[in-house]
Amino acid sequence: MTIRFALLGAGRIGHVHAKAVTNNPDSILVAIADALPQAATDLIGIYGGEQRSIDDIAAATDIDAVLICTPTNTHADLIEKFARAGKAIFCEKPIDLSVARVKSCLEVVAQENATLMIGFNRRFDPHFMALKNAVDQGRIGSVEMINIISRDPGAPPPEYIKVSGGIFKDMTIHDFDMARFLLGEEIDTVMASASVLVDPKIGALGDFDSANIILTTASGKQCAISNSRRATYGYDQRIEVHGSLGLVSAENQREVGIEIATADGYTKPPLFDFFMTRYLSAYAAEISAFVAHLKDASAATPSGDDGLKALIIAEAVLKSVHENRGVSLSEIA
Amino acid sequence: MTIRFALLGAGRIGHVHAKAVTNNPDSILVAIADALPQAATDLIGIYGGEQRSIDDIAAATDIDAVLICTPTNTHADLIEKFARAGKAIFCEKPIDLSVARVKSCLEVVAQENATLMIGFNRRFDPHFMALKNAVDQGRIGSVEMINIISRDPGAPPPEYIKVSGGIFKDMTIHDFDMARFLLGEEIDTVMASASVLVDPKIGALGDFDSANIILTTASGKQCAISNSRRATYGYDQRIEVHGSLGLVSAENQREVGIEIATADGYTKPPLFDFFMTRYLSAYAAEISAFVAHLKDASAATPSGDDGLKALIIAEAVLKSVHENRGVSLSEIA
Amino acid sequence: MTIRFALLGAGRIGHVHAKAVTNNPDSILVAIADALPQAATDLIGIYGGEQRSIDDIAAATDIDAVLICTPTNTHADLIEKFARAGKAIFCEKPIDLSVARVKSCLEVVAQENATLMIGFNRRFDPHFMALKNAVDQGRIGSVEMINIISRDPGAPPPEYIKVSGGIFKDMTIHDFDMARFLLGEEIDTVMASASVLVDPKIGALGDFDSANIILTTASGKQCAISNSRRATYGYDQRIEVHGSLGLVSAENQREVGIEIATADGYTKPPLFDFFMTRYLSAYAAEISAFVAHLKDASAATPSGDDGLKALIIAEAVLKSVHENRGVSLSEIA
Amino acid sequence: MTIRFALLGAGRIGHVHAKAVTNNPDSILVAIADALPQAATDLIGIYGGEQRSIDDIAAATDIDAVLICTPTNTHADLIEKFARAGKAIFCEKPIDLSVARVKSCLEVVAQENATLMIGFNRRFDPHFMALKNAVDQGRIGSVEMINIISRDPGAPPPEYIKVSGGIFKDMTIHDFDMARFLLGEEIDTVMASASVLVDPKIGALGDFDSANIILTTASGKQCAISNSRRATYGYDQRIEVHGSLGLVSAENQREVGIEIATADGYTKPPLFDFFMTRYLSAYAAEISAFVAHLKDASAATPSGDDGLKALIIAEAVLKSVHENRGVSLSEIA
Repeated sequence: MTIRFALLGAGRIGHVHAKAVTNNPDSILVAIADALPQAATDLIGIYGGEQRSIDDIAAATDIDAVLICTPTNTHADLIEKFARAGKAIFCEKPIDLSVARVKSCLEVVAQENATLMIGFNRRFDPHFMALKNAVDQGRIGSVEMINIISRDPGAPPPEYIKVSGGIFKDMTIHDFDMARFLLGEEIDTVMASASVLVDPKIGALGDFDSANIILTTASGKQCAISNSRRATYGYDQRIEVHGSLGLVSAENQREVGIEIATADGYTKPPLFDFFMTRYLSAYAAEISAFVAHLKDASAATPSGDDGLKALIIAEAVLKSVHENRGVSLSEIA
Repeated sequence: MTIRFALLGAGRIGHVHAKAVTNNPDSILVAIADALPQAATDLIGIYGGEQRSIDDIAAATDIDAVLICTPTNTHADLIEKFARAGKAIFCEKPIDLSVARVKSCLEVVAQENATLMIGFNRRFDPHFMALKNAVDQGRIGSVEMINIISRDPGAPPPEYIKVSGGIFKDMTIHDFDMARFLLGEEIDTVMASASVLVDPKIGALGDFDSANIILTTASGKQCAISNSRRATYGYDQRIEVHGSLGLVSAENQREVGIEIATADGYTKPPLFDFFMTRYLSAYAAEISAFVAHLKDASAATPSGDDGLKALIIAEAVLKSVHENRGVSLSEIA
Repeated sequence: MTIRFALLGAGRIGHVHAKAVTNNPDSILVAIADALPQAATDLIGIYGGEQRSIDDIAAATDIDAVLICTPTNTHADLIEKFARAGKAIFCEKPIDLSVARVKSCLEVVAQENATLMIGFNRRFDPHFMALKNAVDQGRIGSVEMINIISRDPGAPPPEYIKVSGGIFKDMTIHDFDMARFLLGEEIDTVMASASVLVDPKIGALGDFDSANIILTTASGKQCAISNSRRATYGYDQRIEVHGSLGLVSAENQREVGIEIATADGYTKPPLFDFFMTRYLSAYAAEISAFVAHLKDASAATPSGDDGLKALIIAEAVLKSVHENRGVSLSEIA
Repeated sequence: MTIRFALLGAGRIGHVHAKAVTNNPDSILVAIADALPQAATDLIGIYGGEQRSIDDIAAATDIDAVLICTPTNTHADLIEKFARAGKAIFCEKPIDLSVARVKSCLEVVAQENATLMIGFNRRFDPHFMALKNAVDQGRIGSVEMINIISRDPGAPPPEYIKVSGGIFKDMTIHDFDMARFLLGEEIDTVMASASVLVDPKIGALGDFDSANIILTTASGKQCAISNSRRATYGYDQRIEVHGSLGLVSAENQREVGIEIATADGYTKPPLFDFFMTRYLSAYAAEISAFVAHLKDASAATPSGDDGLKALIIAEAVLKSVHENRGVSLSEIA
């Protein structure tokens, strides 16, 4: 059985997924839709398939699944449309910036009994998977505390910031998902401090570029997250999990493993420049996992509920920053 | 000019300082006092000097400076006594567990114009000094965020916990001092979450063994601290400082630098087992700095005020944990 | 222009190249030949193309280039056949185990003005390419000495050893090529010591499993190579180049970058298990380079002459071991 | 029992040993002799003791042991003199540059039943000791091959080169000793290639500044050594031992463990600048071992015979370079 895909949105991340679908021996790319026909045409030139409208894709009998890579504000509507059309859905995070909208969308998904997987790509990074395996195998005993350092190489432009939902829903949301994934227990309360240290334009838009967040579970396990929209040395992506028997950490990754020693010291190259290079294999593994879920009819994870829970944490963290206090997730409607 | 020392308290840390004073070509150890005469006798057997009472030391004309290594609850009284006696004072942290008591003690020090240096040994660790130098030289631009991971290899016994003042005044206080030392700006507000994950006996005493703390300055710089009273792999002591131009980090240290590669992987030895080995050179450098201050009559740092400020942070952090909110240092009397 | 390939030999390395040709947007796999038709059929099931005889491939007008992945003893004949047939040729190393046979084969290649590239894949490894770039950019000044440590995870079976030409022509030949590639000057004399420490069966066949080799250029630059047919911790592949201004080294590579710290120490996973995983991207880059050479009609490197020169070094090294003396390459006919 | 020392030679290495003797609780420094009285006076100003002539030291009843730190050409005579005087002797390497002279000297030592320890300090380096312990504990199985990379930060001046005996007797001799120490089997044959790449003045004196050496035991175990009189990045001192079950390596050491990450990459400081800093703790441990030998009357190692054997290897290596062939140690008279 080959899974037949349509791609909605032929932008940067759409390109990544088109490649993953094409390289996977169990899937093919049948159609691409984009508001800018030329973008779809360009991708078709590389990966094949044909250009179709979103409505045609929804009605098509030769398409099993869609990849939603359109702007965030279209995600929930598209999920509902394709859930009703009986297609399996892979949607880039976030489902929506509004918790209420996500909840109503997931109700439709549930009613239609649709398959929905959310693009939290980091769960599929081979390094983080190895870290997760070590935790699951009990190598570090009982999980107690997690430390995530996640820094982007540079801040996005103001136009992006405006529609991004802010640093917590746009950037930290990946860290929230990894925290849930690794803690093995739901987050109960959050605390956070956020600042504008990198770019005053970000502050002028009411957003932050530097933040520290503490997530705590009911049993007292904690996850500390440090974020910055700046890192001169590349895309800084570190996770460590501390447990009763030890510590497992995933190191930063760079393109090549050389070291030059001179009178100035020993120098290794900077890290990968951003997510498109750092998480290349994660994106491929993510699509492979989705295809595998579809082939064996297993539940797709990360699920829509995983997307909702990460968004609720983001809302709570934002509230914590604004009110300068610990916020319980139960406070978020 | 040779600085002539008396040591008050011949316990473990007293031993370390006796060695440092003896090895320093500019200082000698003249006398030792301890409530247990045998402890003093044992140290004298190794480092020389004679046993004297505290009163005799205060009255002595052949002693320039005292090292206060007695239990914490005696520190403030001894500082006052020796300030009045005209001796220079090196006192192990903390001055006292009460902010009010520390303030009254420091008033006496000020009135007597006494020299007082507090034993925040980490400032003198060669690795952290190199990190501080890199920051001061502008290697990472403007400081934005600091991450400190500080884990003890094991929890102290309940008897110690009872008199320790709790994890923040006993253990994290070193991290608070390093945060102040490296941020270059005073802490304004704090937030923290603390748990009992290692040993329920610690919880039964009202203390915590696992904590994450966020310190924020008025301009929005932040320091995130992660603490645990457990680390199976040794004494985990890491600091990294992130700035506008880059990141500088101090690595964990181990006794020997070997690596064994087998079918199980590549293994390096555990870290130093605790502060007595990890910070051996820091203790020596600390005493050397104190002696140098006395010789050139410069102001001794870290000062009593540094001790007070770290204690105030600890109080604020405890309040933050109990009240589940951000706490301003101005709230601490 | 798309380069149309035929693959000769559908074994393990043939599979790797079939994948590389298929993934390269500028090349396609048209035909596969193998003495065992089922092997060809299996590969065709994955990568497409059709099964053809070697003669049909030589005669085909829809094939531009061949990949020779058959047993070593067929290489020279096939190179001559396809040179005469006007096909571009990529041939796995070595061309032949006999220097005389390689020379006669290369004469045919020269007469036919054929394109021939030899599969010294390591030149295309991204880590070694970065190392080479650092050298070429003058980062370490003038090259003086190279150290190569190259250890296989395990010894091949006696049947393989018998037809392999021995450790120097089979295994070290890659190191000889890298030495030439990085030294920037031809090897003049060699010295070597070889032993049987891993498997007496290897010794019974007149071969060695452990060796150290010193290559020296006319100007006195040196390359030291250490080989073993055993490495419990994975495929050990290290190169460092020392120059007048510094040192550049390429680190060993592993599949995932995690580290587990426990009371036993800090452990990273073993290295990649062997060349099929370690050099996966090198093989793809190698085929891309060959395709690029064909597209722009540039000289393909590593060339047949590179293959010959590495073989001559291997012969000289073997002579050095047997005669326990330094051997000049000029002694090898 | 306190061992009472006299120091012969108040130069740089004499200073190091004077400090080690003084810091050791079981030894004291009683007297210092130097051809330049001011040099002795300077050291006495720091470490105490009194200035005496060599004859007075030989005749003294308050001296148990001597540290010979004078120029190499005086070592053998002084060893004989103090062996006859009944003093225990610690002598810096080498005993002499002539194998014959060393042999005759050791005969006197044997006749007098004198205690003689040679200053191969690296055996006492804590990192190399940990490596040796790992080998002895069977962590890597049966030893097969050793790789030593040993590079000085810079070439010594021509005046030193002239009297040094050449690179093999002066510099590599330490590596020869470590090879013997770690192989657990005597060297049988050697092969080497040497060049002048760093400084033509060294070549003008008939010496070399760059060399690769292969040492082989009768059973085929091998040690490969790479030397250079240049290393811009500090004092490069690496050893790795490969065995049937794995590999143990000792890493290079630096003064401080920090890393600075910027747009240029991740940079660690250069290594220790030379032996006086790199091997500081080794020198102290070496003297402690000598004192311990004297206190418990155990055989002192490394012995005079260890010194002789390393010298014989150096002679054989030099012969190998000059004759461009493998040389058996049995060829060295």
